[in-house]
Amino acid sequence: MKAFYGDLRLGVLGGGQLGRMLIQQAINYNVTVRVMDPDPEAPCRKLCDQFTVGSLSDYETVYKFGKTVDMLTIEIEKVNVDALEQLEKEGVLVYPQPRVIRLIQDKGLQKQFFKENEIPTADFQIISSAQQLRESHIPFPYIQKLRRDGYDGKGVYKVVNESYLDKAFTAPSLIERLVDFEKEIAVIVARNESGEVKCFPMVEMEFNPQANLVEFLIAPSTLPFEVHEQAELIAKKIAESLKIVGLLAVEMFLDKHGRILVNELAPRPHNSGHQTIEGNTVSQFEQHLRAIFDQPLGDTSCLNNAIMVNVLGEAGHEGPAVYQGIEKILGKPGVYVHLYGKTFTKPFRKMGHVTIVDADRDKAIEKARFVQANLKVIS
Amino acid sequence: MKAFYGDLRLGVLGGGQLGRMLIQQAINYNVTVRVMDPDPEAPCRKLCDQFTVGSLSDYETVYKFGKTVDMLTIEIEKVNVDALEQLEKEGVLVYPQPRVIRLIQDKGLQKQFFKENEIPTADFQIISSAQQLRESHIPFPYIQKLRRDGYDGKGVYKVVNESYLDKAFTAPSLIERLVDFEKEIAVIVARNESGEVKCFPMVEMEFNPQANLVEFLIAPSTLPFEVHEQAELIAKKIAESLKIVGLLAVEMFLDKHGRILVNELAPRPHNSGHQTIEGNTVSQFEQHLRAIFDQPLGDTSCLNNAIMVNVLGEAGHEGPAVYQGIEKILGKPGVYVHLYGKTFTKPFRKMGHVTIVDADRDKAIEKARFVQANLKVIS
Repeated sequence: MKAFYGDLRLGVLGGGQLGRMLIQQAINYNVTVRVMDPDPEAPCRKLCDQFTVGSLSDYETVYKFGKTVDMLTIEIEKVNVDALEQLEKEGVLVYPQPRVIRLIQDKGLQKQFFKENEIPTADFQIISSAQQLRESHIPFPYIQKLRRDGYDGKGVYKVVNESYLDKAFTAPSLIERLVDFEKEIAVIVARNESGEVKCFPMVEMEFNPQANLVEFLIAPSTLPFEVHEQAELIAKKIAESLKIVGLLAVEMFLDKHGRILVNELAPRPHNSGHQTIEGNTVSQFEQHLRAIFDQPLGDTSCLNNAIMVNVLGEAGHEGPAVYQGIEKILGKPGVYVHLYGKTFTKPFRKMGHVTIVDADRDKAIEKARFVQANLKVIS
Repeated sequence: MKAFYGDLRLGVLGGGQLGRMLIQQAINYNVTVRVMDPDPEAPCRKLCDQFTVGSLSDYETVYKFGKTVDMLTIEIEKVNVDALEQLEKEGVLVYPQPRVIRLIQDKGLQKQFFKENEIPTADFQIISSAQQLRESHIPFPYIQKLRRDGYDGKGVYKVVNESYLDKAFTAPSLIERLVDFEKEIAVIVARNESGEVKCFPMVEMEFNPQANLVEFLIAPSTLPFEVHEQAELIAKKIAESLKIVGLLAVEMFLDKHGRILVNELAPRPHNSGHQTIEGNTVSQFEQHLRAIFDQPLGDTSCLNNAIMVNVLGEAGHEGPAVYQGIEKILGKPGVYVHLYGKTFTKPFRKMGHVTIVDADRDKAIEKARFVQANLKVIS
């Protein structure tokens, strides 16, 4: 365990909403936060001690930024890992570790890691040419994913039959058997440097199929105990195999046969853990800080039923954001609004989220529907 | 109800811990926060869009600062009210209203207000000369309070008998009958411009007699229902009589005969409401924002037993602050640390607070004692 209070300069690569909510927690620990993001209008711009506009994928830029802090963390995986490795060599604490980020950045390496460590996952094949795609052993329909830089549904392509192959990605990718899933579930696990590991209770997700984004999330899940138990075992096994320091979000499918298959990993706070701010004893943001500061991990238990609704830019609207209906939703008890400080809206852009908490699960769902029907971001 | 999201520039007079926790909440509403404080090292210095070093009691300084924002609020009462009244005339929204701040700034006017509005309070007399003090009708022992600028026990003097009169304050003051109280209790009430009024459940306080500061606070109070009911009625009556917009903390005594007597008011977030951050559906900081933004007030119900422990600078230590024992207290479940970003400690300075939450009240108290025994701020 380290004593870090007061003087630590924490650098965060990425200045989006995850960084913003991390800062809201870091304030409680007197941590000096410096943030870098390529967007001068990033959500963290006004909340940190120092905000640097810079490319996260450029070696020199990341290296220089890293030299100004004592510890570095990320809120996005797409960062220059070579620079992080150099910084680590020179004594900067980098959590999660560069080798973990490098592995998770590449969906191909991630899948191989699952295979080598006997983590259940959908059948897959790594593809490096259009020819290999045509000769693959995975039957139609399947999912093609770019190995690098995909997020929020970008870089993902569904290959239904041979006629879809013409539009397939030609960059290095992986293809995987389409999982006929019953539910999408997620477990967020944290590990500190002393080796303590703790999971947040499993959550269930509902995606918006049009936007291909998590839109609705319920915690805790009401799936059978055995599913919770197995999902947590898998998440812990991954965290321990990786020896990650920090948070790890493990997205999984529960298939129609009751099997759990790991979909993908994110080594950082995650959209599927936003409801922990109000719904759990410790939030994912606080837990990430405790993990990287090598403090005792917090109690993750759920205080209540909590539903997280993403607030997405309305289709057909692009421009300066206008929020409609906030006063309506604030009229309901247990409704928490989190806006991300983004000036411009565009269709399906994540502009904020709302957490709805209620001791009665059905009432929570009813209120979440009310929030979805009444809160709009237009321009 | 107003729609305020996105463009509102909120000015806060005072950049201490109350402003700091207000900013943590305001982030969720995309509010642009500007803060002014005379101390260049004030806790809010790095968290707001713009931080101005300036005197809060100087007319020109407050007026100029107020002209740069759309709405002004306070986190300390000791501000130049003449400037606020002028700003109000010129269209700046000032909440709480300058007339309310003016009344509460002066403990004599506060007491007269209680009398005029039949709010129960200890017998008192307003004193403007040493001669008046000697001729007063209040029997010994009594408390003398400066009418203006007292806080956290400063400006308060206990007059036990005639021999104490030589050291009594000579500035305008009030004296009041010493209340032989059973408990100190507090209710925080909020009122928005539309006239909605809501109380947080009553809390019980324990003071550190040496430092004369709230040191330990338990919510919700386990005093009989009738006491809760009466305390809330009194708090609501005061808020409605004042027509305050914003939060009002009402500190009260429960005397040995079961009577409630109002001690004093604070028209802002208050130390006796810090536990609402984790302990209640809505926190006092969110409630203050909802009130001044004329939004529906939030559900104030307690989620759990919550104890608030002030983290005070250790006696005999003055200098750069060093925090001891944080990793120990974080090992207990339901312990939340809030440090205030103060670089220097001095004896009894409020350096932070810790909230302890537990479904079992006795366990919460046990953990609070552990926190008090283990967390130290030294230099």
